[in-house]
Amino acid sequence: MLTRIDHVGIACHDLAEKIEFYQSTFGLSVVSQEVNEKQGVREAMLHVADSAAGSSYVQLLQPLHPETPVGRFLARRGEGLHHIGYGVIDIAAALVAIGAHGVRLLERNSSRRPDRRVQSPWPAGSITLAGGFNHPGRRIQSPWPDGSGTR
Amino acid sequence: MLTRIDHVGIACHDLAEKIEFYQSTFGLSVVSQEVNEKQGVREAMLHVADSAAGSSYVQLLQPLHPETPVGRFLARRGEGLHHIGYGVIDIAAALVAIGAHGVRLLERNSSRRPDRRVQSPWPAGSITLAGGFNHPGRRIQSPWPDGSGTR
Repeated sequence: MLTRIDHVGIACHDLAEKIEFYQSTFGLSVVSQEVNEKQGVREAMLHVADSAAGSSYVQLLQPLHPETPVGRFLARRGEGLHHIGYGVIDIAAALVAIGAHGVRLLERNSSRRPDRRVQSPWPAGSITLAGGFNHPGRRIQSPWPDGSGTR
Repeated sequence: MLTRIDHVGIACHDLAEKIEFYQSTFGLSVVSQEVNEKQGVREAMLHVADSAAGSSYVQLLQPLHPETPVGRFLARRGEGLHHIGYGVIDIAAALVAIGAHGVRLLERNSSRRPDRRVQSPWPAGSITLAGGFNHPGRRIQSPWPDGSGTR
C-alpha cells in the first residue's frame, strides 16, 4: 500500500530559524512555503530526494497562534517530530483498507487537495497519505497537522 | 548531503503488537528483528519501499527495561515518533559538515556498524545517518535510539 516515505512533519516555534538550519546544515532547499489559515499553520517544504515513486521532503510547521493544532502540540510536547506522510497510489482504497482496521480517520475528504489524514491507533501522531506517483506542484498541501488524540 | 529518508524510528511498549499493526494495516513486511543489549532495545525493521538511492523502513523500538534510552523516552513522551534516519553517501564527510554547524554528535564511531547519531540542536529528537547507497543486509543496525537532550 505504501509507496514511499513522502515527508517528515516537524513542529517548530520559528520557521525561518529552522529553515536556515536545514539549509545550512543539511543542504536542503525550500521548494514551497505557504500560510494555511484554516489549519492555523505556516509551513515550508524542503526537498530531500527524488525517486521513481516520488520525492521526499522535510516539512516544517509553525503555528500561527497557540490555539491551533500545531500550537497545542508544541505546548504539550515541544518542538520535534509531528507526523509522517506516506505515499500511496490510491488514497480512496487506502482509506478503506486502513479504516477497516479500526484506525481513526481524521479527514476523509478535502475540496482543496488530495492528502488525507489518518490517526494512528496509539499516540504516535498523525499519518498523512499523499496520493499518486510524482505530483509536482502538489507539494503545497499541508498535512492537516493536528495531533489530536496524541499525547 | 541527504540522499533519502532512510527510516522512521518509532518507540513503543509492545513490539509484537505494533509489528502486527503495521503488517495488517499497511501491509509492511518485517525484514529483520534483533535485540541490541548495548542500547537496551528490541527492534524490528519493516520495509516500506525501494528506490535507486536505497530502501526505506519503519523501525519499531521497544525498550528492554525502563532505564534505557528508549525507556526514558517513553516515560517522558509516550509512544510515537522517536527519530529520523537519513541516507548519506559519505558518513565521515557528513559528520564533519554537520559538526561544523554546531550540531551535537552523539556517536562518531562504531566498531559494529556504519550508522552515526547526531543530535538536532533543538529538541526534535535524534537524527541518524545511514551511509552509502543500497546496503542489503545492513538493515540490522539500530539507530542508537537515545533521546538524550530531547524533551
